[in-house]
Amino acid sequence: MKTQLDCYSCLVRQALHAARFAGADESVQRKVLNQVMRALIQLDPESTPPMTSDLIHRLIREVSASSDPYQRMKEKSTQEALALYPQLKELIQQSSDRFETAVKLAIAGNIIDLSVSEQYDLLGSIERVLNQPLTPNDTPQLKAAIERSPWVLYLADNAGETVFDRLLIEEILPRPVIYVVKSGPALNDATLGDARAAGLDQVAELRTTGYDGIGVFFDKSSPEFLELFDNSQVIIAKGMANYETLSECGDRLFFLLQIKCEVIAQDVGKPLGSLMVAQGKPVR
Amino acid sequence: MKTQLDCYSCLVRQALHAARFAGADESVQRKVLNQVMRALIQLDPESTPPMTSDLIHRLIREVSASSDPYQRMKEKSTQEALALYPQLKELIQQSSDRFETAVKLAIAGNIIDLSVSEQYDLLGSIERVLNQPLTPNDTPQLKAAIERSPWVLYLADNAGETVFDRLLIEEILPRPVIYVVKSGPALNDATLGDARAAGLDQVAELRTTGYDGIGVFFDKSSPEFLELFDNSQVIIAKGMANYETLSECGDRLFFLLQIKCEVIAQDVGKPLGSLMVAQGKPVR
Repeated sequence: MKTQLDCYSCLVRQALHAARFAGADESVQRKVLNQVMRALIQLDPESTPPMTSDLIHRLIREVSASSDPYQRMKEKSTQEALALYPQLKELIQQSSDRFETAVKLAIAGNIIDLSVSEQYDLLGSIERVLNQPLTPNDTPQLKAAIERSPWVLYLADNAGETVFDRLLIEEILPRPVIYVVKSGPALNDATLGDARAAGLDQVAELRTTGYDGIGVFFDKSSPEFLELFDNSQVIIAKGMANYETLSECGDRLFFLLQIKCEVIAQDVGKPLGSLMVAQGKPVR
Repeated sequence: MKTQLDCYSCLVRQALHAARFAGADESVQRKVLNQVMRALIQLDPESTPPMTSDLIHRLIREVSASSDPYQRMKEKSTQEALALYPQLKELIQQSSDRFETAVKLAIAGNIIDLSVSEQYDLLGSIERVLNQPLTPNDTPQLKAAIERSPWVLYLADNAGETVFDRLLIEEILPRPVIYVVKSGPALNDATLGDARAAGLDQVAELRTTGYDGIGVFFDKSSPEFLELFDNSQVIIAKGMANYETLSECGDRLFFLLQIKCEVIAQDVGKPLGSLMVAQGKPVR
C-alpha cells in the first residue's frame, strides 16, 4: 500500500507525539517536525506509510538520544493487558465458538496502537469487538488454513496486544506457532523483551523480523526471517503496518486488525472502525 | 494565540482538504502540500494559526485557479440553515430566556466549520448545545455590556452560521448591530454576498474587515474597519479564528464559539467540545 497524501498530516502528528514521548523539549520537537516535513516533501510516491514512519522514529531516537521512547508505555500496556488475561481466558472458555472469540480478542488488543492515539480504551475495545461483526470475516478460511499447515507464522504488532495474541495462540496450540517481533524498538511494537514480559515465550517460539522498524520490509529483514516467511503456509499478520507492507503478498496471509485510519478503510473498502479478518488476495 | 506545534498536522490536513474542495488533481494537491510544509518549516513562531491558514488558502486559490473553492459549500450551508430558521425562531420565542437561547443557537451554528471537518451534524449540534451548559458562561456580562453600548459590533465567522447569528441579532435589536464579514473568499467564512443570502442585511448594517483572510489581522484590515473596531464598546467575535487573532484584545470582546481543537481547549483551559461565551481579559 502506497503512502497517500492523507497520510502526510497523520505522519506529522505522529512525529510530534513520538518526540514528546521521547521527552524532547519544544525546540527538539520543532526540529523533528521540520526534518519530517523535509522528508515528506522528498517522499518517493511508491513508499509505504511504515517506511516513512520508520524514518520518523529513527530520527526521533537520534535527536532525542532515547533508544526506546515508548519503553514505559509498552510496559504499562503489557501490565494492563496481563491483568485482564484471566477474565479474557474465561470468556473464551465459556464461549460457543472458542476460536472465533479468541480471534476477536486478538483484534480487540489491536486498539493498543500509539501511532493512532496516545490514549486507548482497552475495555471499551473489548466490549465493542465482542458485539460487532467482523468485516470481512475470513475466520473460517483462517481456521481451515491453520488445520492444513504444519505450523503458524504469527507476525506481532504492539506490546500489550501480545497478551491478546497469546490467547489466540493458546487456541491454535498444539499446532506450533512461531511468533515474530521486531529486532529492536520501533514505535510501541513488541520486541523480544516485550513478548517475554507478556509470556509469549511460554506458548510460541519467538523470532524477530531482523529489523527494528514497524511492518515488514523484505529488503531489511534477516535471511532467517525471509526463509521462515517463504516456507510458512499460513501467516497471521496483526495490525495496520503489517497490512500496509504485506497486503499484496498472497493468500497465505491473514490480516487481523482494527481499521483505525481512513486511508486503510479506503484501501480495504470497509468503513473506519471495522474489525477485519481478511485473507490476502492470491498472487497471480 | 501563537501557532502551536500541534497546529502543524492540522494545517497540513486542512491544506489537502481545501485543495480537494478546489477541485485540484492529485499532482496539484501534492504541490500544495509540499508548499505548505515548506512554509511551515519557515514559520515565524510568533504567528497565529489564522496567518498560516491565510497563507494556505491563498496558495490554494492560486494553484487551483479557483477564486472561491468553498462557494458551493457555503451556499449549501446557508440554504440548510435558512430551512431551519422558522423552527429555531419558534424555539427562541417559546424559551424562558430568549437571549440565552439565542446565544446558544449562535454557538450551535459555529459547527459549520470546514477547517475542522468537511462534514458537520447541524441538527446534532443544535440539540447538544441546547442541552449542554456554556463554559465559561459570560452571557450575563455580554447582556449587560450590550445594554450599556450604543451599538454592537458583530464579527462573523462562517457562511450558514450567519443565519444563527441573525437569530441572536434579532434579540439584540432594536440596538443597532454592525455585522462584519470578510472582504473576499477566505475558507468558508462569510462574505457580503453570503451574508446577504442569509438575510443579514435585513437586521444589521453590513461591513467587512477589509481583508479576505479568516480572523482579524490589524495590519491588513481597512482603516474603516479599524476605526469601527476601536470605537465599539462591545464586540461579539464568533468562532476559533477570531479567538485566535483577538484573544488578547481586551474585555470589550466576547468570544462565542465551540471548542473544536485541542490547542484552543488548552489555551482556554476548557475541554474539547465546550461551548463558550467568554469575555476577553482586560488589557493592562
